[in-house]
Amino acid sequence: MAKRITNRSEDYSQWYLDVIKEAQLAEHSPVRGCMVIRPTGYALWENMKGALDQMFKETGHENAYFPLFIPKSFLSKEAQHVEGFAKECAVITHSRLQSAEGGVEVDPESRLDEELIVRPTSETIIWDSYRNWIQSYRDLPILINQWANVVRWEMRTRLFLRTMEFLWQEGHTAHATEKEAVEEAEQMLEVYRTFAEEYMAMPVVTGLKTESERFAGAVDTYCIEALMQDGKALQAGTSHFLGQNFAKAFDVKFQDRNGEHRYVWATSWGVSTRLIGGLIMTHSDDNGLVLPPKLAPVQVVIVPIYRDDEQRETVLEYARPIQESLKEKGITVKLDNRDNYKPGWKFAEHEAKGIPVRIAVGPRDVENGNLELARRDTLEKSIIPAAGISEHVSELLETIQAELYGAAKKRMDENTREVDSYEEFKKEIENGGFIYAHWDGSAETELRIKEETKATIRLIPLNSDSAEGACMVTGKPSKQKVLFARSY
Amino acid sequence: MAKRITNRSEDYSQWYLDVIKEAQLAEHSPVRGCMVIRPTGYALWENMKGALDQMFKETGHENAYFPLFIPKSFLSKEAQHVEGFAKECAVITHSRLQSAEGGVEVDPESRLDEELIVRPTSETIIWDSYRNWIQSYRDLPILINQWANVVRWEMRTRLFLRTMEFLWQEGHTAHATEKEAVEEAEQMLEVYRTFAEEYMAMPVVTGLKTESERFAGAVDTYCIEALMQDGKALQAGTSHFLGQNFAKAFDVKFQDRNGEHRYVWATSWGVSTRLIGGLIMTHSDDNGLVLPPKLAPVQVVIVPIYRDDEQRETVLEYARPIQESLKEKGITVKLDNRDNYKPGWKFAEHEAKGIPVRIAVGPRDVENGNLELARRDTLEKSIIPAAGISEHVSELLETIQAELYGAAKKRMDENTREVDSYEEFKKEIENGGFIYAHWDGSAETELRIKEETKATIRLIPLNSDSAEGACMVTGKPSKQKVLFARSY
Repeated sequence: MAKRITNRSEDYSQWYLDVIKEAQLAEHSPVRGCMVIRPTGYALWENMKGALDQMFKETGHENAYFPLFIPKSFLSKEAQHVEGFAKECAVITHSRLQSAEGGVEVDPESRLDEELIVRPTSETIIWDSYRNWIQSYRDLPILINQWANVVRWEMRTRLFLRTMEFLWQEGHTAHATEKEAVEEAEQMLEVYRTFAEEYMAMPVVTGLKTESERFAGAVDTYCIEALMQDGKALQAGTSHFLGQNFAKAFDVKFQDRNGEHRYVWATSWGVSTRLIGGLIMTHSDDNGLVLPPKLAPVQVVIVPIYRDDEQRETVLEYARPIQESLKEKGITVKLDNRDNYKPGWKFAEHEAKGIPVRIAVGPRDVENGNLELARRDTLEKSIIPAAGISEHVSELLETIQAELYGAAKKRMDENTREVDSYEEFKKEIENGGFIYAHWDGSAETELRIKEETKATIRLIPLNSDSAEGACMVTGKPSKQKVLFARSY
Repeated sequence: MAKRITNRSEDYSQWYLDVIKEAQLAEHSPVRGCMVIRPTGYALWENMKGALDQMFKETGHENAYFPLFIPKSFLSKEAQHVEGFAKECAVITHSRLQSAEGGVEVDPESRLDEELIVRPTSETIIWDSYRNWIQSYRDLPILINQWANVVRWEMRTRLFLRTMEFLWQEGHTAHATEKEAVEEAEQMLEVYRTFAEEYMAMPVVTGLKTESERFAGAVDTYCIEALMQDGKALQAGTSHFLGQNFAKAFDVKFQDRNGEHRYVWATSWGVSTRLIGGLIMTHSDDNGLVLPPKLAPVQVVIVPIYRDDEQRETVLEYARPIQESLKEKGITVKLDNRDNYKPGWKFAEHEAKGIPVRIAVGPRDVENGNLELARRDTLEKSIIPAAGISEHVSELLETIQAELYGAAKKRMDENTREVDSYEEFKKEIENGGFIYAHWDGSAETELRIKEETKATIRLIPLNSDSAEGACMVTGKPSKQKVLFARSY
């Protein structure tokens, strides 16, 4: 098979698209900016969803489902919120088509009284419901999550990283006190960090967004940021402390223990199919996708090698108990017994699809009681005895998971540095990576840095041990260094 | 607690809405025709989804995700299809809002070149992708399912049964031969029948729709039909043999083993949140929701009964090991230790929510080593020893599942009859239920019966043992009796 994946060093963007194509994760759809998530990509999303959903439930959240459509008037109720989303709305204006020459046209008689917006996020429609659900402190907290599709009319899209429609989860919680809401927002940030690091093997840094990067309608936006192989940052998840902004916009009050009526405190938090983009760019190589075992839809593939029907039968008979013993160990294993593809072709396909471990068995292995084991991440191969294979593979999968994280963490650490002067900053930012530097806290300076270097403040670290200092641009006082990077 | 659920005999429609409200399954949203699925309702849907998804995967299907939006021109490609859906389309015409006095208005500059339709079903967008995926017989079959939301602009909506937006799954398969596609459509009908009967405990009859009731674009529509407590039929799931209609509309051909290019054969099949409506109306009673154990989000609730803190501690200490032993048995059990509600209040709530089994424990039970067991379906109570409780409850849940099905089957059978004359038919249809009668096979007669009696042909039975006869209306020859009912 000719090399179908562009090398990262040649063209990183093309490499990203090639990896997605060869792993059959997704493709562009005829609807501009939307994607088709193919079975392999969707199976990956199902695994991510499953792990996250369990973590949400363990922290006391329940799933629910709110309408896809938001009345236009709802969006305007929270001033910051509408400002943030007005420019990227899919607007529904009519409800019927009628026959026309060569096809159909919109029936002008079906114009809606009030336009509907396809949800870009659901705070407004959800807080409208919460008004009816909340009367007393006994009704609080409300801890709800929703798995849904949302639409933001993006002009420049890229598979998984930025698409017009994307799949995500959005948590929306309501609390009696500010403290409880802040704790919730921080707890969910921690859930995201744990998921990114322990499941995706993707190290992240955590912190707060600056005012200009905050979610439209939030008091504070917490985030996890990851560093991709090309040195650009990826915002991978956000958790918002919304204060009483939406409670005030939708008039949601509760009677507290003393009988007083108070506005409710809120959070919202979300991660999306964008995470798949982050996963790809954290681990994959010039041969294609590399997946952490904990999320891989298929963890082990067994490829039989034979020349004729007789050998085929012998080898398959040898392979089947190996498959069974792995299954019994809880490992997801596939026996690739397709007869119309050659082993080499299969190897390349499984490599491109990122299956963590490949086992190959041929007639000589049958004779010797061996098998060939290949790791997708390191491409290392070894011949080992088939006896005790399930134990061996089980440990190997854990090793791979840990080493993928280790390698990504090492790369992030090596590409994270501190600078003290703006000159140094401008030089360093060209090499990519995370850069800590002092900033005076003003939106003006932030904007100037962005315009001059294309770098943005990814986050203000929480509990930073950085000393006070002077802004690298203006020399004004700065309490702590903040994290800069160019980003997706 | 005052009776909050209208009796079925008084007002069946109000009863249905009351059951949903008191069980907190769903509610109307401010967006006309859309609903909010509340956590209890969504947990039920998750259980249904989980069981169905496993059955789909066991029959070789994979999940994928296609765009929410369909270009207007796609819909027109299959003539029957567009005719069926044109009158109920949510049409997106603009992509931005702008500030206006007192809120926001649509930005006229953001008019789209081609309008987008929110998917009412996904055949067109999916077959457009299949064209790129299918070249050779080696690429077939494609066995894909999608869990998604769809929108049909319905004017008269009812929670779960008919809503503008609803959640569903839609399978879309592509095959090399007609035979294989027909077998797939029939297989999925059988999956739906199994799910309805074995999980929902809802007996169904299966068969083919008449031409006028067929899915827009199908050659044949298979369906499962259930009978609700008010004697009306509910179409609960459909599986379509689409012939080559969509392959021709989207030019999807494959090269067969002989090198010839042929159009691909197709099926599609779906069930939706409508099933929840069917579930409610199959089992529930004047006290609220009744759920089959296999789908109940909570299968057993334990209610501690006490007068003071000391008793509370004693009773809870007694209850916890009971809870643990049930959990170990794989039973979903909740210990309702809320201190701010009285036992009577809790009983009513659990009854309204349809929890299949309730265990109550008080100080006297602690002394005697007993507990009180109550069945939600029959409302029977008994005092039994706490020893061996998990075994007992496990068997009881199976009994309840079987008896719910049995009761529903008995009701369906008792309300199914055959008639030979139209006069008899017109009398019998007033009593509700399923009626088998001869029909001459013409759309005219079918329409006349519908106009005169509000009854429709629910299905033409497969492999019927009914003898040939004469149409009850026209006296023309009829090959077999078909199934009539008034329906939702």
